Amino acid sequence: MLSSTDPRTGAKTPTEIEATSTTEADAIVQAAQAAFGRLAGRGRLWRAGLLDALADALEANRAELVAIADRETGLGTGRLGGEIGRSAFQFRLFAEALRDGGYLEATIDHAGQTDLGPAPDLRRLLVPIGPVAVFGSSNFPFAFSVAGGDTASALAGGNTVVLKAHSSHLETSALSFSVLSAAASAYGAPAGVLGIVFGTEAGRTLVAHPLITAVGFTGSLGGGQALLAIIESRPMPIPFYGELSSLNPFIVTPGAAGRRGDEVADGLFGSFTLGGGQFCTKPGIAFVPQGAAGDALVARLVDTARDAASHVLLNERIASSFEEIRLRLAGVQSATVLATGEAGAVGFTAAPTVISVDAADVTTDITEEAFGPLVVIARYSGDEQVIAALDAVPGSLTATIHSEQDETDAVAALVSDLTPRVGRIVFDGFPTGVRVSWAQHHGGPWPATNSQHTSVGVSAIRRFLRPLAFQDAPAALLPAELRDELPDGATIPRRIDGRLVLA
Amino acid sequence: MLSSTDPRTGAKTPTEIEATSTTEADAIVQAAQAAFGRLAGRGRLWRAGLLDALADALEANRAELVAIADRETGLGTGRLGGEIGRSAFQFRLFAEALRDGGYLEATIDHAGQTDLGPAPDLRRLLVPIGPVAVFGSSNFPFAFSVAGGDTASALAGGNTVVLKAHSSHLETSALSFSVLSAAASAYGAPAGVLGIVFGTEAGRTLVAHPLITAVGFTGSLGGGQALLAIIESRPMPIPFYGELSSLNPFIVTPGAAGRRGDEVADGLFGSFTLGGGQFCTKPGIAFVPQGAAGDALVARLVDTARDAASHVLLNERIASSFEEIRLRLAGVQSATVLATGEAGAVGFTAAPTVISVDAADVTTDITEEAFGPLVVIARYSGDEQVIAALDAVPGSLTATIHSEQDETDAVAALVSDLTPRVGRIVFDGFPTGVRVSWAQHHGGPWPATNSQHTSVGVSAIRRFLRPLAFQDAPAALLPAELRDELPDGATIPRRIDGRLVLA
Repeated sequence: MLSSTDPRTGAKTPTEIEATSTTEADAIVQAAQAAFGRLAGRGRLWRAGLLDALADALEANRAELVAIADRETGLGTGRLGGEIGRSAFQFRLFAEALRDGGYLEATIDHAGQTDLGPAPDLRRLLVPIGPVAVFGSSNFPFAFSVAGGDTASALAGGNTVVLKAHSSHLETSALSFSVLSAAASAYGAPAGVLGIVFGTEAGRTLVAHPLITAVGFTGSLGGGQALLAIIESRPMPIPFYGELSSLNPFIVTPGAAGRRGDEVADGLFGSFTLGGGQFCTKPGIAFVPQGAAGDALVARLVDTARDAASHVLLNERIASSFEEIRLRLAGVQSATVLATGEAGAVGFTAAPTVISVDAADVTTDITEEAFGPLVVIARYSGDEQVIAALDAVPGSLTATIHSEQDETDAVAALVSDLTPRVGRIVFDGFPTGVRVSWAQHHGGPWPATNSQHTSVGVSAIRRFLRPLAFQDAPAALLPAELRDELPDGATIPRRIDGRLVLA
Repeated sequence: MLSSTDPRTGAKTPTEIEATSTTEADAIVQAAQAAFGRLAGRGRLWRAGLLDALADALEANRAELVAIADRETGLGTGRLGGEIGRSAFQFRLFAEALRDGGYLEATIDHAGQTDLGPAPDLRRLLVPIGPVAVFGSSNFPFAFSVAGGDTASALAGGNTVVLKAHSSHLETSALSFSVLSAAASAYGAPAGVLGIVFGTEAGRTLVAHPLITAVGFTGSLGGGQALLAIIESRPMPIPFYGELSSLNPFIVTPGAAGRRGDEVADGLFGSFTLGGGQFCTKPGIAFVPQGAAGDALVARLVDTARDAASHVLLNERIASSFEEIRLRLAGVQSATVLATGEAGAVGFTAAPTVISVDAADVTTDITEEAFGPLVVIARYSGDEQVIAALDAVPGSLTATIHSEQDETDAVAALVSDLTPRVGRIVFDGFPTGVRVSWAQHHGGPWPATNSQHTSVGVSAIRRFLRPLAFQDAPAALLPAELRDELPDGATIPRRIDGRLVLA
């Protein structure tokens, strides 16, 4: 039997959940495959309604979901309530994308003469791929778990989803699943459109299963690599969409330090401790100029950190790993610990930690991701020092630059240097807020992610689609979106004979 | 020293080419990386001009390129001249895509209130990834080699390219490279924008090189898997875009067999022997109904095959592998050899081979891809037999259905069944012609390809791009395509606040 632990007390939560056997996991995947077949007849507008129904169901069950998740994660009811809203918003955004129809990439090249001679009629759109396995994360029990962006985008594409519940919030996962399943069933979705498994072995079974067509994963680098190894041993490879590890460099220019150092210090504190520092977008290393303005910024940050309460971490493994890495970073010879706290006696807690190092001493020893409330401050004396130090920073989801208007040239050079290293560049803000929208990109070079598109933003849907082309097909055999005449009301953007055409 | 062989005679061609050493290969990749940095300042319109210049250069050197390629491949000057045209067309199509600008996927979400509270300004577009390694194929010395779609699409995206010359057309590769390099240089491209290596070891060096960001490959399943194994051992994984193996099922309905069996037989013969049967889209298994009409179709196909001349195969490895697989397929107990020929005494040749089997006996023994002029005819007595047999057919680039108008319902059922198995469905035509256009898709489930997008058609460019998002960026620091006001003449489609907007 599996059970979760209340991270505030370290005590096991009362409910036990049975680990899914290999046989059961196989049956769940088979059901997902059968449901996939039955989904083919329903169109994208039907699916948009399904996603809206799932969003409504999440919100209708907010109180109960939040209460259970708070006990399993210690993240607090305010944050968790907001996360339910985020999950619901995400389902609705994909519903909007389905109604828009641009995601289909409907493309028509009529038959005709070309420079290479006569050419056939060719039409293409994107089609779903089949049952998708989604691994819930530890740190977002809703928005990156059972009710998260992987689930929403895979379903939006017309796929079915088999979830692997995260071991540290089993009850939250089970309840999320039953809320979503009941809503899907009430809406008229075929049984098996969603499935869930519990336990590490069942997770491995999913990844190795011949009917699973892709894996979405948000978690640790080690966990991701273990699943990748299973995928590499499959006879038929499948894509693994992993979001793994990110240090998120944060750069404060002399101008910003001088003119609004307090504001940057306070914002940085809020960002590196948000959710107990357990955000994949947490700024893990901040470059602060040497000199009086930088000193003042750091002093304020350190004072705030020393006065702050400890944070509850998500589970024992994260807490012990944080403690281990915290000690390792504190022990780096060139580093100075400016603020730190002991772990509390009860439950899994950590105090905000600030470690300082000279930018010239930034090596991979000091750029290990510490999942928890810790930031390394790298003091620099010129942009070239920042750029050199960035070579020791692994590929990240984000980079942040705080600067002033009269520094645009220097900032432009920093942007060029940061471009190959990250997926999102934040100006004068903080990376931990990840807007769910059409333009969002929540990915970055390895080990941040290993795919072009990830689980946040509308492009997430692309991961679970593939192109299908029709050559000289009779109109009756074409999907409606590829016929010359679109059905009434089906106003979607299409590229026709090389030209993008709106409805 | 490396040299090619004239497949018509089996004799080595006169020119020897030195294998690239590991040190030289590293220097070439370093030069590609340096050139990548220098390309960043040139915009997409500059690159469109570069692609046009490369197309012009290919055509200007057509005669010399064709003569050398004919000696190295035996494909014939007509076909090879056409292939030069195809390559040039491909470069120009990507130039058109660059001018269109839609490929950037420019997306703007303005700051504002959302259901989740205030949200920052977020803008995203696609950016190039860096030096790309491209492995030339054996069977298309131009269109899928040095001057092929991988090269064109990688360059179009703003990347640099290091080519691995195919061992069976070294001189063609060297000359193609020097034609393209000279044109790039004359156009003003930085040195290193194109590089080339020769020899297997140098190819391995490329795939393992930390500065290489993606690999494009068209070749055998075995060759692809060997490169995948290198990628899997890299500390930093990179995408491998492989087009590997495809059987391309071809289905003739009773209606088509009855009403135009001769036409289908002649077209099928032309298609399975085109280029000596060495097309990745060659129909390798054809389902023909039992009964008189099917018998007549098969008889005509077999008569044509018996009367036909032998084909020159590309090289000794392909010829011996074809002979081996031909004998293996001929030896399958349930199979009957209807037409076959001995390999010629000189050079590498093969005669058109037709093997027949009952559809009920279609197993993976008979569905091995034979790269050369061989087709398996599977005689069936009902669509359910076809569908059952398709389970023994590996994922393919294409499927083809020949049918008559009054069979639409049955064909619709076939289309549903074929959808998860292939990337392109051809109606009443032949799969070997692959139109280069916006709507083309030249991919399919494993082992046909292992990626969503492949080397043919405009979406090929996506493989060599990644998203980059800007949050609250000052206008001066944004790429021109993401500013609220586009510069004069820069009329590109963008998605603004969720709505697709044309220029």
